[in-house]
Amino acid sequence: MSTESPTPDRSLPGGGHPLDWLDLREKEREEAGLRRRLRPREAAVGGLDLAGNDYLGLTRDERVIEAGVRALRTWGGGSTGSRLVTGSTTLHAELEAELAGHMGAEAALVFSSGYLANLGVICGLIGKGGLVVSDAINHASIVDACRLSRARVAITPHRDVDAVARVLAERAEERALVVVDAVFSVDGDIAPLAELAAVTRRYGAVLLVDEAHGLGVVGAGGRGAVHAAGLAGADDVVLTATLSKALGAQGGAVLGPRRVVEHLVDAARSFIFDTGLAPASVAAALEALRILRTEPDLAERVRANARALAAGAREAGLRATEPRGAVTSVLVGEARLAFDTAARCAEAGVRVGCFRPPSVPDGISRLRLAARADLTSADLERALTALRNATS
Amino acid sequence: MSTESPTPDRSLPGGGHPLDWLDLREKEREEAGLRRRLRPREAAVGGLDLAGNDYLGLTRDERVIEAGVRALRTWGGGSTGSRLVTGSTTLHAELEAELAGHMGAEAALVFSSGYLANLGVICGLIGKGGLVVSDAINHASIVDACRLSRARVAITPHRDVDAVARVLAERAEERALVVVDAVFSVDGDIAPLAELAAVTRRYGAVLLVDEAHGLGVVGAGGRGAVHAAGLAGADDVVLTATLSKALGAQGGAVLGPRRVVEHLVDAARSFIFDTGLAPASVAAALEALRILRTEPDLAERVRANARALAAGAREAGLRATEPRGAVTSVLVGEARLAFDTAARCAEAGVRVGCFRPPSVPDGISRLRLAARADLTSADLERALTALRNATS
Repeated sequence: MSTESPTPDRSLPGGGHPLDWLDLREKEREEAGLRRRLRPREAAVGGLDLAGNDYLGLTRDERVIEAGVRALRTWGGGSTGSRLVTGSTTLHAELEAELAGHMGAEAALVFSSGYLANLGVICGLIGKGGLVVSDAINHASIVDACRLSRARVAITPHRDVDAVARVLAERAEERALVVVDAVFSVDGDIAPLAELAAVTRRYGAVLLVDEAHGLGVVGAGGRGAVHAAGLAGADDVVLTATLSKALGAQGGAVLGPRRVVEHLVDAARSFIFDTGLAPASVAAALEALRILRTEPDLAERVRANARALAAGAREAGLRATEPRGAVTSVLVGEARLAFDTAARCAEAGVRVGCFRPPSVPDGISRLRLAARADLTSADLERALTALRNATS
Repeated sequence: MSTESPTPDRSLPGGGHPLDWLDLREKEREEAGLRRRLRPREAAVGGLDLAGNDYLGLTRDERVIEAGVRALRTWGGGSTGSRLVTGSTTLHAELEAELAGHMGAEAALVFSSGYLANLGVICGLIGKGGLVVSDAINHASIVDACRLSRARVAITPHRDVDAVARVLAERAEERALVVVDAVFSVDGDIAPLAELAAVTRRYGAVLLVDEAHGLGVVGAGGRGAVHAAGLAGADDVVLTATLSKALGAQGGAVLGPRRVVEHLVDAARSFIFDTGLAPASVAAALEALRILRTEPDLAERVRANARALAAGAREAGLRATEPRGAVTSVLVGEARLAFDTAARCAEAGVRVGCFRPPSVPDGISRLRLAARADLTSADLERALTALRNATS
């Protein structure tokens, strides 16, 4: 389709078409083996999926699906507005209460994504004139939120508590926020939360922990890494979580002291100016949470399966990270090699994640293997066989 | 719940608890009448809803609901991962193709929210060393995206094309992006798109138009304001849209030249590092779009109802904005008065939106009335009676 608009006069100041730079960028990515393409999947795919984040295997659980169906028929396809206008249903309130109860927080606030939860809480708790201290490999949504906050951002080396303490001790700013992923998404390692909380408290700062990969997976009953570290309900610790991984649905949440949640209702732009999470997703997450609470060993099962994958990969002579949650990563190196290895696994019916720059800040491309609670020993054997063959 | 962590030493540098400032902030808001509270709604509420953004009345349409139900049962409660990993289904691809077809764009990319679509496309198309020109009352997600982009941000007066031209002409930056809401969310007025596109093109920039309140409402068959302005398919115009308003579901999209969409797949952080939209929401939006395409007069119906609301409000001596889409706003003034007036409407069974600072940048609080395609003349009369009584 073309347009009737006047002939472009692009003589000033650049010359060519204002989007021509995209072609150059695409070519550079193509040459570096960093071009990404969407590969829409069919509903009924055979094989074994170790690429998704459905850690507890609940996204296709009948109970979760039917809870979503009931919500659709009760509430309709969408929440129809901002949570502050028409977008808050009693279903959202139920999920917030039960999620807070599960993780030991005073209150919770559901966002339409984990990304927006991080933007909302970080920009809501720190701003110009403040300091935010962020682990070097925190998730992209945390990185973006730190930038957006206009606070001074100090990046500390991965898992380096002493570096955090130094930055806090030497700061000129009164207000400071320390932000960290509970479980790091690519390698599956865990943050030193007890130590970070002690240091944060010592220096009068607030600790924000992203439990995206902790909820449902880490700690007794999957109550998360903060709970496991004895910090649940602490009055200077705030959490974020996602509803799209262990809880099999979509969305995110902030959890913490009630005054933090009430402040975000008033101040978090990504909460106020966004449509509320769709009722079907709220209901699916709520049902998954209830299943987890009645079957608390799901969390231990997924961890055991992740450990088995890592151990098997090491026996095959591969470098696999130590999983503290659902995930282990096999370090491959060059981006194209990782891509090809993942493709060979897929040909053998085993889908694994392939993480290349910029998703891996150290430049070492990886295969990411996400375990699920419902993997059988035959599944594990199949996965390891495919991995051995793809890397030999 | 309390914690076993060591006694806080908050002597340095601030003194008190690091979250005590929240109490002060809450008190200030309380005194200014700007405190917000969530009021979760029940599923079966009587009365008339003019507060939500379900412009075509499709969110509870049987066909939309059952499309969501089928998707839940086919795909499960969530998409299980990033669109680049497991989060792209053939359903996402179908929606992208049909949405692009409807709006006359070459390609489309679905995000999990309109907020994230704006972050993704703006940060994907402009960055450090570039210039972004943004209308003074653009949506919060555009404002945040401009900040996050690290480009120089020039705010131009509302709907001022000459100001945009001046900023573009005088710029030192080669690359520039002009960003504007097609239909402004609070007052329902429309951007001068043909003029903006001419100026943008003249000066070698790219135009980005947010059709959040245009899709399904503006132009023949609800193809949006860009299409109505004769700009559909232009090679230097990019659109964003939401799936949570006229399409009754949840999510957002970017539409435009194929090379823009392909670039975002590679580069948009809020696309890459976010879980894909839940299949039920994708299916609900797709079904709503198909209904709109078979019943194109839905768009004209909602506009006629909005004009009737505005005309009736003016007959009652109120200041109502001229609706170009689904929305008209009644200017009230003081925040608390607007809040009380909205509450009186609600008591009469008519729910209207109440917009107070910071949602209204001019400080004039408003009642926002969103029409729907399915309002009857009795509904309109009821709404206007409630409004007259609440303001007299």
